[in-house]
This record gives sequence, structure tokens and C-alpha cells, in this order.
Amino acid sequence: MKDLAHLQTPAFLVDRNIVEQNCARMREKARASGVAFRPHVKTHKTIEIGRMQHGGGSGPITVSTLAEAEFFAGAGFRDITYAVPIAPDKLERAAALARRVERLNILIDSDAALQAIERSGFRFDVFLKVDCGYHRAGVDPDSDGSIVLARKIAQSPAVRFNGILTHAGHSYDVRGLDEIRAVAHEEGACLTRFREKLGMNVIRSVGSTPTMSVVDRVENADEMRPGNYVFYDAFQAAIGSCSRDDVAVSVLATVIGSYPDRGQAVLDSGALALSKDLGRGPIDGKNSYGIVCDLELRPLPMRLVALSQEHGKVEAANPPPVGTKVRILPNHSCLTAAMFDVYHVIERRDIVAEWRPCRGW
Amino acid sequence: MKDLAHLQTPAFLVDRNIVEQNCARMREKARASGVAFRPHVKTHKTIEIGRMQHGGGSGPITVSTLAEAEFFAGAGFRDITYAVPIAPDKLERAAALARRVERLNILIDSDAALQAIERSGFRFDVFLKVDCGYHRAGVDPDSDGSIVLARKIAQSPAVRFNGILTHAGHSYDVRGLDEIRAVAHEEGACLTRFREKLGMNVIRSVGSTPTMSVVDRVENADEMRPGNYVFYDAFQAAIGSCSRDDVAVSVLATVIGSYPDRGQAVLDSGALALSKDLGRGPIDGKNSYGIVCDLELRPLPMRLVALSQEHGKVEAANPPPVGTKVRILPNHSCLTAAMFDVYHVIERRDIVAEWRPCRGW
Repeated sequence: MKDLAHLQTPAFLVDRNIVEQNCARMREKARASGVAFRPHVKTHKTIEIGRMQHGGGSGPITVSTLAEAEFFAGAGFRDITYAVPIAPDKLERAAALARRVERLNILIDSDAALQAIERSGFRFDVFLKVDCGYHRAGVDPDSDGSIVLARKIAQSPAVRFNGILTHAGHSYDVRGLDEIRAVAHEEGACLTRFREKLGMNVIRSVGSTPTMSVVDRVENADEMRPGNYVFYDAFQAAIGSCSRDDVAVSVLATVIGSYPDRGQAVLDSGALALSKDLGRGPIDGKNSYGIVCDLELRPLPMRLVALSQEHGKVEAANPPPVGTKVRILPNHSCLTAAMFDVYHVIERRDIVAEWRPCRGW
Repeated sequence: MKDLAHLQTPAFLVDRNIVEQNCARMREKARASGVAFRPHVKTHKTIEIGRMQHGGGSGPITVSTLAEAEFFAGAGFRDITYAVPIAPDKLERAAALARRVERLNILIDSDAALQAIERSGFRFDVFLKVDCGYHRAGVDPDSDGSIVLARKIAQSPAVRFNGILTHAGHSYDVRGLDEIRAVAHEEGACLTRFREKLGMNVIRSVGSTPTMSVVDRVENADEMRPGNYVFYDAFQAAIGSCSRDDVAVSVLATVIGSYPDRGQAVLDSGALALSKDLGRGPIDGKNSYGIVCDLELRPLPMRLVALSQEHGKVEAANPPPVGTKVRILPNHSCLTAAMFDVYHVIERRDIVAEWRPCRGW
């Protein structure tokens, strides 16, 4: 069995046992809460982990691109929610896919999108996107106009109105368990409030990894869609969604420059290996693009302060010598994973498999 | 001919005429300055533009990964500098490539790397990396230890000592032509000073797009290696390396959510299409992940304030309706280009070709 230290760097390492454990814990939370489980696959984009999320076989999933939807449909996943508001000129491609699977739910939040669907000539399964406070996409759950739109969707012969869906992305901006729990409460509560005003028994779909991770039980919802939890990352550990031991992925890198005189080193993992996501942002006025660890994942006294395309600049009182291998826990695993065409799957330090994610749109 | 407005979004658009013009201008500057031209290919990573950089055929190039070196070698490029300090365990792969081409220069900046080469059993062509003020990689040109190391490299029978190389990456941190020109002066001057102390007639290799763009004539150097200039980007235009009309690339995106009540819109181009590079950083306290333009590249009164994986959040007094297509000039074209497996090449608004960049390491 090949030891991870012999991989060419940069390499993206996925610890299979930790992924399995993260998957099992979230699946069990859905079961114990009595809500349907439709995990997001956008973080990993692999068939292998899509199946792990469902304990082995295929099952309902959530995707962020039509390319993911087609990729997973090709591997036998037949109940898919495309959870980004659809662009009108993607409807034709979505219809072609919908004909191949049992169900493809698409997302809208405007009359313009409803009209585009009505013009498409295909009867889509539709969710209405609701804004639970993140203020990215979605209709205001407390405005009368949103009720008008929901009724219009429900009455349109051109669609099947399956439910209302929200994403508490602002759970990433709060700190600590109590604040995340407050966001989690509003995530379900706003859908429940909206559904009562609407007076229709549609599905309430919720999902963000921080909210789903910290609550003991998912309430006020019929379905949950977390995604990042399969890997977690340095950011999720920092805000309290997980412990550092739950982080399943790391980037293996090599020290290619060591400068004791100026307390610096350079790694061969830059922005194209890690992504430039700053996670929580500067700490003590300095950036950190991940947590630099040794091969056993023990944190080292170093800070990854700058990334250029293929260089990662480290500050360290005692920089390690050229050739040293390190592992970096990424700030944001979704973006880091997407930089790699292949994942190296490990058990302890052994490379046991290679998985290839879906790419593009 | 297909109009760009009909592409599925997000799509990466490359304006062939602007690339040709950027390539011709830099090539002419090298010729007029009497310095050898070894352009960097890391920004575009395509054979097509690699040839354009040399006016049609192949020629000397600079790369940032061994994957690029192998990709271009496979297309007939036979004189390659791998301009990132080499990790010792990449020497075997580098030697295999070096045997296939006329010359593969590798970069070192430490005795540890020299010793690794000596142990490798292959006689490499070597450049010594010098730090001209960027403080990322490289030896201090004014320290005696650097002279000792250079002499050791020169005297080692295990290598051919071909030159000294620097990259003025700190030209990205300054503002305005005068400050960039001062960095450009020191870029060549420090190599010249170092070479005089060394007393050897080795090549002085310089190169960063800001410095090479703003000087009328490249001085104190024997070779230049700019790369970003083929595309330029919003950042280069902001610091004065180019005009906005010289930016050859844009990301085509679609408005998928429009929220006039809160002065916002959402695009289907997020962090996986644009990268999270902030360019010059927040302006007036707010982020901007590129310049949002209409299809004719006229800037729109909008700011791209936040990116999540597949959503770009825009602030605009009058957000455009769902379905509107926009073009985004990226902050950092090197990182944005690397997010795409295919480039859509345009002339005016016509799609005329598809090019596929090299990926990975």
C-alpha cells in the first residue's frame, strides 16, 4: 500500500473513515428527526460519496449545477433537486434530464421564471425559494407578494408545485452554537409560517451544514439538504459546526523554499490548490489560508499568509527545510475540492483509492 | 456563426483579436529591448496562445507546473523554464522530461535543493532564484551567503548553471506607473549587481506583467518572462499595467434572481467560475469580484459584492431582470481561467473556436 508521503504534491486527500462517520451521523440525525434526507453533493461531486451519504445505494440528492445532475443521473440517482434558481435558457437542458429520471425539482423565486417555465412546454417539478435571512436568493416569507407568487405557481397547470425551500447561508456569518441554533430555528420557522399563510401542505426543505450540525433535532421541516458536512473544513471547525477531528480532507504540500533569516517558507500549494477563500477572514490582522499540519495532522506553528498561483507563503519562527511534507486543512473544502481532478482516498496514511469528481456546469 | 449570448453560462470568453494584439505588443517590446523572450504560459495554459506569444510557432517558454511543461513539450515546445523552486521528489519526473526536450531549466534557491540535484544523478540546467523585494522565494542579492551558494552551483559538476532569475511580484502591490517603474528598475538592477559581485556572465531573467508592461524598454536583463499580459484583467487595469480595453477575457453570466426591493440580483457565476480573488481588495469598504458589464463590455452600475459556490451576489439600484446576460471582467485572469475546462474564443460576439487548457500538476 502506498503511503501518502509518496504522492506528488499538491494532492487532495480524503480520509474515507472520517467521511463515512460524518455521513452516518447526519443520516442518523435525519432519521431520528423524522425528516426526509436529500443531501447536497456539491461539496464532493463524486458518485462514491453520493452513495455513502445514503448508506450505500443511491437516494434523493441536491445539486448545484446541471452538470452534477446529469453526472449523478448517469450513475443511477433518480430523484434530484437542482437548488440554484434556474436560468430560463437552461430549461431545455433541464427538461431533457427530467425525462430521464423519476424527478428533477427545479427552483424559482420570480414570476419571470414561472412564465419562462410556462413557455417551455414541459411540466416541471418546482420548489419556491424562500429567503430566511441570508438575503442572497429567495422571496420574503413575510411579504404578501410572496403568497401571491406561491398561489400562482400552485395554480399553474404548467408545473407541479412541490414545496418551499430555504438555505440559511447566514449561519456561516455567526459565531458559536447559540447563534447558529437561533438561525436554525428561524430557517424552519419561516417556512412553517409561510406555509400556514399559504394554507397548502407543501414540503418544507431546509439545509445548511452549520444549522443541521448543531441542532439535536431538525424541526419545522420535512426535508434536509446539508452538503459540506461530508468533509467539513477549518472554517466549520472555527464556527463550531464540527471538531477539528471531523475534518476529512487536507491538501498535501511540499516545502520548496525555506528562509530562516526572514522566518518564512514557501509551499508548492498556492491559490490553484487551495482556493483563495479566507474563511473567517484575517486573524490578528493577518490572513490564514488554512491550518498547516504535519503528516499526522498535528497543527504546526506556521501561518499560511499569502497565496499566489502556485506558491503558498508561510510565516514560521523555525521554517521547515526544503522537501518537508505538510498537510493543510483547507478553509473551505467545497472550493478546495473543486480545484482537483482527482481525490486521493486514504485510510490512516495509506492511499486506498482515487475518485474523480464531476466538473464544470 | 453562434453569438456569445447563446452560450450556456457560466462561460469563459477569450477575445482572440485582443490576445493577438497583447502578444504582438509584448513580443515587440522584447525585440526592441534586445532581450530574449521567454513568455510565461501559466495564465492561459493553452497551446494556441503559447504559439501566439511567439508570433505563430513554438519558442522558449516559462511554466509554473510540470504538468504544463509536459503538455507544451508534447506540442513541440522544446526550451522550457520551470519557474517555481523544484521539490526534491519532482526531480525524477523533471529528468524524464528534460531527456525529451532541448532544455528544461529548473529553479533552486538553496543548498538543500542543489544537494538533491547532485543526488539525482541527472545533470540539470539550473537557474538560481533571486529575491528582488517580493520576499516570496529567492536568495537575498546583497548577502554574501547568496554569492557562496551561486559559486557552489557554478562549480558543481552535477548541473549547468545557466542564470539568475527574479520575479517582481511586489509590482502588484504598488499603485501607478511611477511606483511600478521603480520596482521594474530594481528588478533588473539587483540581478546586475549580483552578477557583478559574482563575476560570471550568466543570464539575467526578469519578468512580471506590471513591470514589463509599463517600461518603455527592458533594461539590465537578458531575458523577460511576463505571462498575465496575454489576457490582463481588472486588477492590471486598476494598477495601470493596461487599459480596460486591453482585457481579453470575461465570464459570461446570467441573472437568475432579481430583487428590486432590496437592490440586489444574483448571477449564476460564483466562486467556482470567478475564483475568490479580491484583486485590489475592498473599495469603499465593499468587495468587488470583478467589473460587471453588458454584452458589449460597457460597465454596468452594479457591484459584485459576494460569491458563494455557484451564486454571485450583485448590488444595483436597478437590478436587471431574470434572464439578462452580463459579462464580468475578472479581477485576476490567471485564477479565473483555471476554473474552466474550455475557453470559448470570440471575435467581436461570434464564437469562433474552443480551446482546452492544461490542468493539474
